[in-house]
Amino acid sequence: MRAAPQRKSRKTLAKRLPRRQNRGQRTREAILARAVDIASVHGLEGLTIGYLAEQLGMSKSGLFAHFGSKEDLQLATVDTARQLFIEKVTRPAIAAPKGMPRLWRLIDYWLAMVEKNVLKGGCFFSAASFEFDSRRGVVRDRIAAIMHEWIGVITRAIQEAQAAGHFDRAADPKRLAFEFHATAMGAHWAYQLLDDRDAYSRARAIALDKLRSLATPRCPGLP
Amino acid sequence: MRAAPQRKSRKTLAKRLPRRQNRGQRTREAILARAVDIASVHGLEGLTIGYLAEQLGMSKSGLFAHFGSKEDLQLATVDTARQLFIEKVTRPAIAAPKGMPRLWRLIDYWLAMVEKNVLKGGCFFSAASFEFDSRRGVVRDRIAAIMHEWIGVITRAIQEAQAAGHFDRAADPKRLAFEFHATAMGAHWAYQLLDDRDAYSRARAIALDKLRSLATPRCPGLP
Repeated sequence: MRAAPQRKSRKTLAKRLPRRQNRGQRTREAILARAVDIASVHGLEGLTIGYLAEQLGMSKSGLFAHFGSKEDLQLATVDTARQLFIEKVTRPAIAAPKGMPRLWRLIDYWLAMVEKNVLKGGCFFSAASFEFDSRRGVVRDRIAAIMHEWIGVITRAIQEAQAAGHFDRAADPKRLAFEFHATAMGAHWAYQLLDDRDAYSRARAIALDKLRSLATPRCPGLP
Repeated sequence: MRAAPQRKSRKTLAKRLPRRQNRGQRTREAILARAVDIASVHGLEGLTIGYLAEQLGMSKSGLFAHFGSKEDLQLATVDTARQLFIEKVTRPAIAAPKGMPRLWRLIDYWLAMVEKNVLKGGCFFSAASFEFDSRRGVVRDRIAAIMHEWIGVITRAIQEAQAAGHFDRAADPKRLAFEFHATAMGAHWAYQLLDDRDAYSRARAIALDKLRSLATPRCPGLP
């Protein structure tokens, strides 16, 4: 979930495309932005080409021109959700200095993304994970790869905080990444299903207590 | 999610029913046991009457005789999953003495239920929670009520452990229940989606560290 140069190069590419292709690209992006929102509520299986066409006021055949199958649409939707996550969480967080400032922002911005209702249906990837975790196929594999990537980003941030001398070197980065991830997912669950308005302040308090308990005296960057 | 006397009284009731009704009840239970398993993989929306009929080798009209609508089937499936949870987790755990022994078993048996693949699709209620959390209607309300009930069981077990003098009285029971729940859900996620074979040993280590850090010297019941 590194902020790859993909976005920039796509824009550059779009400039070079003939006007019709350029417009096609923009239409595709608008469709997918809506698809991510719908899937966050109804699940990736609930994202049918018929329902999406209806919501966008397009014809089904018009949508089929962009996505040949439901599976193609699901994959493109998952990749669009990943881009949105990079834009809202990973990129702004890794703009902070390596170490505790970056680690805290990764957690904080992830909580904020769902708390601010960026998508109607809460955390896209928590829902997609539990929807596809017992299936087989390319959609499940893509979701799992993105989740491995995300856990990898958190784990690396913990290791960087250890290398920077901000964080207890004896702590196990994989276990800690698991804990931060579970805490955030628990908050999404309590907020979205149980309407628990304290879910995010509680999750932040738990994550901060954990970070403080492992921080060295020279550690910066905690609120 | 208390082990209510419901199950026993249902058996007693079944004995008094005429033979045909009794058989009808058994057929319904067999259908629902399968429905829970299917829904754990394909979601409650993926549990169509047509697919379930096919899996059971029954006619769709035969199934309609038991469940008038998809929503009725979903509600009955959710309630069957709750009964299964009570049978595998809540009832055996609350057979342990009040206090830390009971609290630890609630966490441990919940992890074990998914670890032992009681259902094909992992944790039924984590999946159902994220599937329905952004919708409206009776199915969502029922799932949310059961999840409130479950968080209530954990919270009460923490309060009992405090009252028994096993557990730091300054700890916030609601926050701790949130933490234990999030840790378990994180384990289900990592095990089922990422095939992480260490997920459950890690979750147990995290929960035990937390419990030990808050246990009093006279606390029994931790492994």
